[in-house]
Amino acid sequence: MNSLTLEVFLEERKAQIETKLPEYVTTLNAPSILKEAMLYSLQAGGKRLRPMLLFATVEGFGGNYQHSLPVASAIEMIHTYSLIHDDLPAMDNDDFRRGKLTNHKVFGDATAILAGDALLTYAFEVIVKMDEAMIDPHQKLRLVAELTRASGPEGMVGGQVADMEGENKSLSLSQLEFIHHHKTGDLLSFSIIAGAIIAKASNNDVDNLRSFAKHLGLAFQIKDDILDIEGSQDTLGKPVGSDITNEKSTYPKLLGLDGAKKKLDDHISKAKEYLYNVNMDHEKLEMLADYIMNRDR
Amino acid sequence: MNSLTLEVFLEERKAQIETKLPEYVTTLNAPSILKEAMLYSLQAGGKRLRPMLLFATVEGFGGNYQHSLPVASAIEMIHTYSLIHDDLPAMDNDDFRRGKLTNHKVFGDATAILAGDALLTYAFEVIVKMDEAMIDPHQKLRLVAELTRASGPEGMVGGQVADMEGENKSLSLSQLEFIHHHKTGDLLSFSIIAGAIIAKASNNDVDNLRSFAKHLGLAFQIKDDILDIEGSQDTLGKPVGSDITNEKSTYPKLLGLDGAKKKLDDHISKAKEYLYNVNMDHEKLEMLADYIMNRDR
Repeated sequence: MNSLTLEVFLEERKAQIETKLPEYVTTLNAPSILKEAMLYSLQAGGKRLRPMLLFATVEGFGGNYQHSLPVASAIEMIHTYSLIHDDLPAMDNDDFRRGKLTNHKVFGDATAILAGDALLTYAFEVIVKMDEAMIDPHQKLRLVAELTRASGPEGMVGGQVADMEGENKSLSLSQLEFIHHHKTGDLLSFSIIAGAIIAKASNNDVDNLRSFAKHLGLAFQIKDDILDIEGSQDTLGKPVGSDITNEKSTYPKLLGLDGAKKKLDDHISKAKEYLYNVNMDHEKLEMLADYIMNRDR
Repeated sequence: MNSLTLEVFLEERKAQIETKLPEYVTTLNAPSILKEAMLYSLQAGGKRLRPMLLFATVEGFGGNYQHSLPVASAIEMIHTYSLIHDDLPAMDNDDFRRGKLTNHKVFGDATAILAGDALLTYAFEVIVKMDEAMIDPHQKLRLVAELTRASGPEGMVGGQVADMEGENKSLSLSQLEFIHHHKTGDLLSFSIIAGAIIAKASNNDVDNLRSFAKHLGLAFQIKDDILDIEGSQDTLGKPVGSDITNEKSTYPKLLGLDGAKKKLDDHISKAKEYLYNVNMDHEKLEMLADYIMNRDR
């Protein structure tokens, strides 16, 4: 797959998930203002990287990615809820995200909290109500078990708490990795593991994909840190240099810019080693790994 | 079952759930401050009415209530998360609950939000990871499906949004019922439906229990409104008369105090009619219905 076909892959699949997501919310029997608040943030765009990783995994095992749209939607609901809560005045107090006002700036803090709660809860409902012609009960239960672990106290929420505790402190590399492994890595990993569960991959393949995903997640975060130094504000859609201003612990701060780039390369290489051990067509996941390393936003 | 045995039932089962709940949290591999915040509110006491309804249903069908402890714990986690988020400054801004400082007053707003998120997410994990010797995959999926609906945008969260929208407005009886049906009723109902699912009750029994639960939930709320007028601050552990001060729409306000008491009687009578249609030993659920009607706190 060359860069043109990667572009087509990303655009086509992004259009699909962005068509599917609002359908789940508009059909809810719930107060309109709640549905508006849920939709506002679900439709705020972004790369939809997590669904892309899910689709690439499903397709790598020869599956039809459209059957995994409910799981992709659930992942985006959980990712979106985490952004809404992170942006709150009590947390990061951000007024803008991706150039749009944050949820609480439009709907108020109370509705934003509840819209996040609703998206989190509904994500699990979407999975358990999937068509049993496409997925059996054991697969559903594995998906919910993996997703709760990835997004709950031992996963994303735990990482967010550790991140808050680490603010204005000098962190070691292992502390920094703990934070990113859980705060962003676990949900990225889930996206890949979910694809393997849907495709009924062997335990050995799941293990290798889990290691692939772990390195990919750290690579993703290192690239984010590098872009905060070398990126363009116009392309990123957010100010650069904010990590330095906020005295945040980052990979470039701990390892130097060159050291961070070396670390990024290492994680991508290790990720690919694990990927090559998996009995699947690796092409799309490999391209996504390169995309994560080389992206400019 | 006379009032003495009801008391024993309530005390013994309360001790069990209060032993079980902290075990789920202390064993988590998560930042200590997050676990402390989760435990703080989980251990803040209360009547544990929802677990009691679950146990009474399971036992009414001849089951062992101990097998349903994970589901009871999940229900308390969701109930507790909703209280933590409701108490936040952005929502009701309460400093005390049951005589103890609210979660955010002890741990700060950010950690309180995240402790709520963690409890909500973890509740589903506890259910899907139940021992398959006690519950089969289809039962688990039904439990998760019912619980997400009861607590999500079409249930508790939706009711909370409707309640906020109704503040400082004169509501009709049907608007008031919509709010309470979802804000408090849906999770109470789930507690009963969950017992029926665990006991593999027939669809007909589930339908009758759903109607029983619906009337019971409204009765519970009407009694709450009445206690805010007639109750004792010492017994309730909170100031009385706050609904009037806050100009809240209540049943006594809409129907008068006598009208509200009549409505309470009606809902309890209707609830029992549905209960008597269920093929089970009704004793414990009937006693709990009477307890809800006659309680002084």
